[in-house]
Amino acid sequence: MNTANYDRGAASDTFQVIRRFPGKPYRLGRLSTAHGDILTPAFMPVGTRATVKSLTPEELKACGAQIILGNTYHLYLRPGHELIREMGGLHDFMGWNGPILTDSGGFQVYSLAPLRKIDEEGVTFRSHIDGSLQRLTPEFTVEIQEALGSDIMMCLDACIPYDAEEKQVIWATDLTTRWARRCAGARRRRDLKLFAIIQGGMNRDFRAKSASELVALDLDGYAIGGLSVGEPRELMLEMIEATRPLIPERYPAYLMGVGTPEDLVEAVDRGIDMFDCVLPTRNARNGMLFTSFGRVVIKNARFARDKRPIDPECTCYTCRNFSRAYLRHLFVTRELLAYRLNTIHNVHYFLELFRQIREALGQNRFHAFKKEFFSKRETKK
Amino acid sequence: MNTANYDRGAASDTFQVIRRFPGKPYRLGRLSTAHGDILTPAFMPVGTRATVKSLTPEELKACGAQIILGNTYHLYLRPGHELIREMGGLHDFMGWNGPILTDSGGFQVYSLAPLRKIDEEGVTFRSHIDGSLQRLTPEFTVEIQEALGSDIMMCLDACIPYDAEEKQVIWATDLTTRWARRCAGARRRRDLKLFAIIQGGMNRDFRAKSASELVALDLDGYAIGGLSVGEPRELMLEMIEATRPLIPERYPAYLMGVGTPEDLVEAVDRGIDMFDCVLPTRNARNGMLFTSFGRVVIKNARFARDKRPIDPECTCYTCRNFSRAYLRHLFVTRELLAYRLNTIHNVHYFLELFRQIREALGQNRFHAFKKEFFSKRETKK
Repeated sequence: MNTANYDRGAASDTFQVIRRFPGKPYRLGRLSTAHGDILTPAFMPVGTRATVKSLTPEELKACGAQIILGNTYHLYLRPGHELIREMGGLHDFMGWNGPILTDSGGFQVYSLAPLRKIDEEGVTFRSHIDGSLQRLTPEFTVEIQEALGSDIMMCLDACIPYDAEEKQVIWATDLTTRWARRCAGARRRRDLKLFAIIQGGMNRDFRAKSASELVALDLDGYAIGGLSVGEPRELMLEMIEATRPLIPERYPAYLMGVGTPEDLVEAVDRGIDMFDCVLPTRNARNGMLFTSFGRVVIKNARFARDKRPIDPECTCYTCRNFSRAYLRHLFVTRELLAYRLNTIHNVHYFLELFRQIREALGQNRFHAFKKEFFSKRETKK
Repeated sequence: MNTANYDRGAASDTFQVIRRFPGKPYRLGRLSTAHGDILTPAFMPVGTRATVKSLTPEELKACGAQIILGNTYHLYLRPGHELIREMGGLHDFMGWNGPILTDSGGFQVYSLAPLRKIDEEGVTFRSHIDGSLQRLTPEFTVEIQEALGSDIMMCLDACIPYDAEEKQVIWATDLTTRWARRCAGARRRRDLKLFAIIQGGMNRDFRAKSASELVALDLDGYAIGGLSVGEPRELMLEMIEATRPLIPERYPAYLMGVGTPEDLVEAVDRGIDMFDCVLPTRNARNGMLFTSFGRVVIKNARFARDKRPIDPECTCYTCRNFSRAYLRHLFVTRELLAYRLNTIHNVHYFLELFRQIREALGQNRFHAFKKEFFSKRETKK
């Protein structure tokens, strides 16, 4: 492993703003990790179980991936972090030599595991795979992520329902802060970055308290969690607008689990640097493809004899080689190649969108880009 | 399409024996098609529904595929041969620019379709997909295969159970001959080769009658059908030995649907030039991998922490990049990448086996190769 950054974990070494825009929250940046730099704004394809579903590392690179995300919860349960450590870490295990960010498992416990119970010490739950009783603490999630060798680790956060009572929101938000302090204290590897997750529900005051207490820890970056959990889109954007300015400029700002291409462009406009979402990969497997002119449902009968690629403007492997007719046939017959070709296209779409965003920022024409992005989607091809 | 061979369909143009071995039935050969030549003995990966499951055309080429097989029955039902013709033929539709052989659908009707009924005219059956009533005649199977643009078409054959009564075997064998005559008469495209299928059950006399009547038609090649349908291995080899000499040297000899690596080596030794089988692809999806030292069941717990590739001697993409531990993890968690990496390995194994067979033949050391092949499999790693 590259340990050049060992013991140089200060935020200023981690993240550099390459270009600012007066009066605007958005920026071009560079995030340094033990497995290389990434340019921001950046989108991270999700590789839940040590694989971005159906793709090889080479295909991810060809799609433009700079960094991918792994899920601590899933990898802890199967195949286990000790096994992955023995295999040389997550990078070697899955053959991906670029940066990896791992979440802390908090959200997966919340969304997947039955019988979860949060207390001061940590979270207890039953595995969704075999029902076994499991326990994650802040210290243990850091231990797991260090065993995986994640370039960017996330602090364990206390996730609660969108419609939780105010008292519960306050408790979970404060607990997330105490857990972040414990995560920071549990770190042994300074070559791996550690981000904290700002919570606070849909309340600006709680968000502000969460942000200020977490920023006081001077970690390597800050994420906005607890959004895209069922709230109206306007409320989500409002919470981003309320929370983003609370993260000082020297830290990368990461919006977790968001979202549609439209949401991503809006969030970049509000100053977010990093994103992850299962939308490109999950929708690919459901036959929903993203294009420059909107969504395509590939099983639609009107594509049965359509010789055109999914998106005539797209340069991905799938669009360069296969027709809508063939992709529809593969999807209708549930052929394995369908999921893969669709995934290549969607992942390429999201990553190409971010390449274009960075290009537009570099040319100081982000708002022109944004205007064109939305106008194209109004006239479907 | 390359129509250079148009109207030059004589067997001597189709197949050339490159090297003979005195007193031995095996040989090195070259089979010419509208989409290029293939060297024989050759193995054809099965691409049932216009895709060799999970693989791209580029991966097939990288695995060493010279020619692939498509299934007329499946493609006729979905997406339909007319649609594929409109899309430019099967090669363009699926993005494979090498030779394609299509079977006639006879065996799939026999093995998949409910309520099948064979009469003099053809075979009537219900689609296994939607229950619709369908009918294939010899003329129609040629029409379908010409619409697909298959480089090598197969005559419709009458398939009956392994344990059929003698009277039924005689009837089906004679019917297969009459159908082959009708297929030959129905051809419109001379750039596409046409092979007949020798039937005759497990009876040497019926096999001899079938072969002599079909050879009299002077088609482009001859297949041995009706084997690997449940009979004991020794009986299969006996029937190959009885049938193979009845195919004159100037024709390629194709053994349909066989078999294990061991069967393939034995069949090459008995003079077979061409093979197809779903074993490498189907077993890959079931987690059974072929290696130089025998079979590997990848879900086996003893591979959980095994850093070695599936086969240390293998040069496929999977073995060059991933450990048994990772492949086991992907398979146990039912990740899409598992089926694909396993398929790459198995298809490469079968095609590499044939490359080695041809190399051994070229160096006049096939029997030494065969001896080494079998001795390696006795000491498992």
